[in-house]
Amino acid sequence: MSGSIYGKHFQISTWGESHGKALGVVVDGCPAGIPLTEADIQKFLDRRKPGQNRYSTPRKEDDAVEILSGVFDGKTTGTPISLVVFNKQQRSSDYSEIASYYRPGHADYTFDEKYGFRDYRGGGRSSGRETIGRVAAGAIAAKILETLGIHITAYSKSIGPITISADRFDLSQRECNALNMPDAQAAEEASAYLDTCKKNGDSCGGVVECIVTGMVPGLGDPVFEKLSANLAKAMFSIGAVKSFELGDGIAASRSLGSDNNDAFSLASDGSVQKTTNHSGGTLGGISDGSDLLFRVGFKPTPSISAQQHTVNKDHEEINISIKGRHDPIIVPRAVVVVESMAALTLVDALFSNMYAKIDDIAGFYHR
Amino acid sequence: MSGSIYGKHFQISTWGESHGKALGVVVDGCPAGIPLTEADIQKFLDRRKPGQNRYSTPRKEDDAVEILSGVFDGKTTGTPISLVVFNKQQRSSDYSEIASYYRPGHADYTFDEKYGFRDYRGGGRSSGRETIGRVAAGAIAAKILETLGIHITAYSKSIGPITISADRFDLSQRECNALNMPDAQAAEEASAYLDTCKKNGDSCGGVVECIVTGMVPGLGDPVFEKLSANLAKAMFSIGAVKSFELGDGIAASRSLGSDNNDAFSLASDGSVQKTTNHSGGTLGGISDGSDLLFRVGFKPTPSISAQQHTVNKDHEEINISIKGRHDPIIVPRAVVVVESMAALTLVDALFSNMYAKIDDIAGFYHR
Amino acid sequence: MSGSIYGKHFQISTWGESHGKALGVVVDGCPAGIPLTEADIQKFLDRRKPGQNRYSTPRKEDDAVEILSGVFDGKTTGTPISLVVFNKQQRSSDYSEIASYYRPGHADYTFDEKYGFRDYRGGGRSSGRETIGRVAAGAIAAKILETLGIHITAYSKSIGPITISADRFDLSQRECNALNMPDAQAAEEASAYLDTCKKNGDSCGGVVECIVTGMVPGLGDPVFEKLSANLAKAMFSIGAVKSFELGDGIAASRSLGSDNNDAFSLASDGSVQKTTNHSGGTLGGISDGSDLLFRVGFKPTPSISAQQHTVNKDHEEINISIKGRHDPIIVPRAVVVVESMAALTLVDALFSNMYAKIDDIAGFYHR
Amino acid sequence: MSGSIYGKHFQISTWGESHGKALGVVVDGCPAGIPLTEADIQKFLDRRKPGQNRYSTPRKEDDAVEILSGVFDGKTTGTPISLVVFNKQQRSSDYSEIASYYRPGHADYTFDEKYGFRDYRGGGRSSGRETIGRVAAGAIAAKILETLGIHITAYSKSIGPITISADRFDLSQRECNALNMPDAQAAEEASAYLDTCKKNGDSCGGVVECIVTGMVPGLGDPVFEKLSANLAKAMFSIGAVKSFELGDGIAASRSLGSDNNDAFSLASDGSVQKTTNHSGGTLGGISDGSDLLFRVGFKPTPSISAQQHTVNKDHEEINISIKGRHDPIIVPRAVVVVESMAALTLVDALFSNMYAKIDDIAGFYHR
Repeated sequence: MSGSIYGKHFQISTWGESHGKALGVVVDGCPAGIPLTEADIQKFLDRRKPGQNRYSTPRKEDDAVEILSGVFDGKTTGTPISLVVFNKQQRSSDYSEIASYYRPGHADYTFDEKYGFRDYRGGGRSSGRETIGRVAAGAIAAKILETLGIHITAYSKSIGPITISADRFDLSQRECNALNMPDAQAAEEASAYLDTCKKNGDSCGGVVECIVTGMVPGLGDPVFEKLSANLAKAMFSIGAVKSFELGDGIAASRSLGSDNNDAFSLASDGSVQKTTNHSGGTLGGISDGSDLLFRVGFKPTPSISAQQHTVNKDHEEINISIKGRHDPIIVPRAVVVVESMAALTLVDALFSNMYAKIDDIAGFYHR
Repeated sequence: MSGSIYGKHFQISTWGESHGKALGVVVDGCPAGIPLTEADIQKFLDRRKPGQNRYSTPRKEDDAVEILSGVFDGKTTGTPISLVVFNKQQRSSDYSEIASYYRPGHADYTFDEKYGFRDYRGGGRSSGRETIGRVAAGAIAAKILETLGIHITAYSKSIGPITISADRFDLSQRECNALNMPDAQAAEEASAYLDTCKKNGDSCGGVVECIVTGMVPGLGDPVFEKLSANLAKAMFSIGAVKSFELGDGIAASRSLGSDNNDAFSLASDGSVQKTTNHSGGTLGGISDGSDLLFRVGFKPTPSISAQQHTVNKDHEEINISIKGRHDPIIVPRAVVVVESMAALTLVDALFSNMYAKIDDIAGFYHR
Repeated sequence: MSGSIYGKHFQISTWGESHGKALGVVVDGCPAGIPLTEADIQKFLDRRKPGQNRYSTPRKEDDAVEILSGVFDGKTTGTPISLVVFNKQQRSSDYSEIASYYRPGHADYTFDEKYGFRDYRGGGRSSGRETIGRVAAGAIAAKILETLGIHITAYSKSIGPITISADRFDLSQRECNALNMPDAQAAEEASAYLDTCKKNGDSCGGVVECIVTGMVPGLGDPVFEKLSANLAKAMFSIGAVKSFELGDGIAASRSLGSDNNDAFSLASDGSVQKTTNHSGGTLGGISDGSDLLFRVGFKPTPSISAQQHTVNKDHEEINISIKGRHDPIIVPRAVVVVESMAALTLVDALFSNMYAKIDDIAGFYHR
Repeated sequence: MSGSIYGKHFQISTWGESHGKALGVVVDGCPAGIPLTEADIQKFLDRRKPGQNRYSTPRKEDDAVEILSGVFDGKTTGTPISLVVFNKQQRSSDYSEIASYYRPGHADYTFDEKYGFRDYRGGGRSSGRETIGRVAAGAIAAKILETLGIHITAYSKSIGPITISADRFDLSQRECNALNMPDAQAAEEASAYLDTCKKNGDSCGGVVECIVTGMVPGLGDPVFEKLSANLAKAMFSIGAVKSFELGDGIAASRSLGSDNNDAFSLASDGSVQKTTNHSGGTLGGISDGSDLLFRVGFKPTPSISAQQHTVNKDHEEINISIKGRHDPIIVPRAVVVVESMAALTLVDALFSNMYAKIDDIAGFYHR
């Protein structure tokens, strides 16, 4: 199966390896008439760029995006948009050693089993650099959503044992610290925790939370194409994700129906609203107009310098210590990836929903 | 978008409403030559049948399946297999009341928003009876997996606050209690807890855990079609699911890399193995040959007899108390649905993996 | 690959064998709110029913359709519509002989090669009865098109060497003769020709022509999802089709650019129009608002009573003479199948076109 | 709908405009382990390059391909292969004039209707240069087929009224003349005919014929995914195609069953064979092991310098004469595009067929 294509209506085809010539994405199915510049996309890519703080890999990459097709006179034309980022700093020598053994927690072994061999340089296609294509396409999807008044905001909810406090929550703080935490105090504590991790040659996991405001009801389809199901897939397609929770999530499985059900009431303008949002914005898998709220749990960075036990290609057991540039935490740089995958998933659901009713279709064509 | 079709290679198309004439599924892409009888499928359907214990709805349905096509001389022919279950006991009168208001926690509101109206009888397409199609198709997928030595086992891990104990885990107990719990003592405690819930007109949530043994490595594709991502979607497509965890799941986001990484070692036969399985059976989203292990969290049954606040179609705020036959817990009957969705997802990945290497393809056609 | 599912947005999943219990289709992705009765569908099915004239098989089948799901209060609900036709007259004994050899021109050999064995009764899944599912679904698609003012009309253009005359063309005649020819004189000549064929134990081919009026421009997508390409696939998916021509078709490959180009001019209302329609209604594969016009060529019915040479399953060369009920011509009963496949293809293109422009999307959601 | 993605298993995503920065393709789902160099692909691209003879546009483009991903140590890795061709000679000034009116026979009008505006430079996405992506991907597909002993050969069958003679057919001649005709005398006559066309400011149509040898039986799936149906779509997705015929094609609709049926007999090695090939290599839409044989009819190049009538964007009727570099015939350069689309379609069918039988699947995984 081709595995690097995402979406049913708004389809993206990503490509590229960590240490290849370039990485990129082709966006097919983007509507015509959207003003789009390289700066729009660069803004998103800059948020996932390495080397931005002391917890991210010191690899220096501009990750400058070029638009190669699909935009004319400053607007999307409806035809495929090809985006490319050329790799600048491919020090393959850094990685030559890992060609010979299987790093614990990495995809080295499974790629070898599946394909017979692998591009071992920097993890090849299983590297975090793979997300460049997702984020570049996500920037376009986010522009479409903004046109409709839909906004996606993700942030670091927890890093190792440090979780942001509801009382201190301040989104403006997200931009003020290197960890993308909307809580200055938690960011400081997490920072100290990460310093200890690094000193120990270790890494830690964490959680990204995401809120979508300005939602329209009716997105998602019954049964298999629930919005919730597609979000779950979208998030679990990101490397290192081990859990996904919608609304109250895991807590819902310990709650009572009388607590968990969101009562309906009338808003001041007479419209129907939920008085609470335990469900996280969907009912029966279809958006109900309230905010989407979900959490994505990431495992610790598998590349650690502490000694580990593994097996090499000659089928010998060995001890290794991974060298090179590695973040001790994945979460802060994953924030924009979560936003991107959410944007791509929502755009697909928005398009699909346009032909749910015959009256809407007739209205569209009888304008 | 059509939402009731699942799978890329082994595609199932489910249909039917709670109180319509029938429910069913068409399985397209099933290989030829599999011995298949109605009894094979009935065995799975019986596990999700209502009225089997005092915690499940007293609705009496045989849910007897008929094979209408795709099987000849006792074997699948490679052409679509149509399976149908006729509804027997459609007491629509039970449900006429709910036509006029939005039940909290249900899809009434979102279906109305999306489609303009809804088949309100018993929840229509958003009823749990929708899973008949999934389970009937899942029985076929499970047969394919068994041919390859792959076995799927799910069970109730927790019900409300009651969780099975690792010490007392005994799979044979799963069949001995109405709650599908592989721990006799936990089953008794959960039973008492549910009695209290019922008495209070309330319901509770719980967790299903699933283990897949006999796995082959290499299933799933990099980036978007990770096995883990497709399992996440499969599970979140089941009604009432609010969380999905693979391996250590949410705990992985609080752990250290040195603890979470699974070391590789050599098995006695010289093959590569993981010494632990924190990852839950995948690396880079591709199966690594170790057992798949995941958990699916369900919210409490939204239908409760306790009083709730909501809005009716005349846009008036009202208080309601839901009548009729409703389980106070979804989990026990969802166990076979989880197994079915896992089976469907794995079969798709197995087919896809057959053309991952040119040598395999050449070997296949040069036999 | 599953092969019995058609469409990307409006997806149909057909099933059933000639001599199985039943045949049918699940329509997933049908918009909500369309008035739909079994009579709407029966009208289409009756047009393909066997035993209607002396040139079609004397098999007596009511082919009475039942709606099993997806319709409530007389209208489609947006959820899957399951349609079923139970087989009444399955005289399997008629066909037992063909189990042992490969009929020339039939799929017996290829099904055996692909699947290892086959349901030989009446051709199993490769029988013309397979089209029941297409036509039942096509009736729904045609209703959607009618809502938008789009009408599809197909007819027998030629039967063997007899072709309708442009001068005598009279659509009302189509209903007046058993051959669906809109030319009374040609119908009579064709009738005489078919009598000779039958007498000789032979069969003949023919051509169906199809016109779609009331078209909207913009349907179809550039490159691979051209409307013309999807029509070609749709028509070639019908059994026995050997040629497809759009507009001038094969004649275009012998013409000059100066003759073949359709000049643009202004209609009396100031809109842009083509002064001719050599192209058959598309430019660059996208509908241009003029009528769609295409022709579908069918080979002769392969089942003939004249002696033929073939091979049996014991790999012996033998001579056979096919018995049983067989039309000497496929074309008249294929007319409604061509209309159905055109309708399904157009509905898909109509839905897709709704999200081609950002202004349309914004207009839709900002209503 | 995204329209620039082709294939279900072996998926290609093409992009690029005639006068944009570059054109290219991402190939996703290519098996690992195929030796692949830029030269393998360049060989195919050179066959469609402009400026190679006096009948093709004098635009000078190297059309040099670069592999940006998916190949490591000289072999495909199983991950997406990104191929790019940078445009060198984009004389946009040539085309500025056509921004203001609709060229007859071109997609100018339909793109404007669908998307609201268009990249008018050289036809933008509807230019013949769009085929660069198809051909580059087709070169990879052809390599896979060669591994399996399957060879695709297309050639110019007719140009205007000049058709190759069966008696003089000599494939080696295809490379000896600029028109890709396997008949030296026909090539000379066609050459003279084209000179007259050019002198008259006119163009002409023609036919490409394609033969696939070394076929395996069983490719294609019943009903909608017939190999024949997918070939029809593949060919009709090529710009300017107006007819597709398989085997005897249009002639089959005028023939008798006794003539058209291909008798089966035993080959000297005891295997089953067809004694004739009227069907063109499929039965029931599934390959029967005999050669595939089909013809693709192209309309005349719509760009002609002779005067034409049309409408401009101010809705005025005008007369135009198209300037610039244009081939008077599309067929010779389309030959390699036909081969490419056939290769892509066959590879997809080959992969699909691997999981048609449970015994094959079990054999694969129990190796």
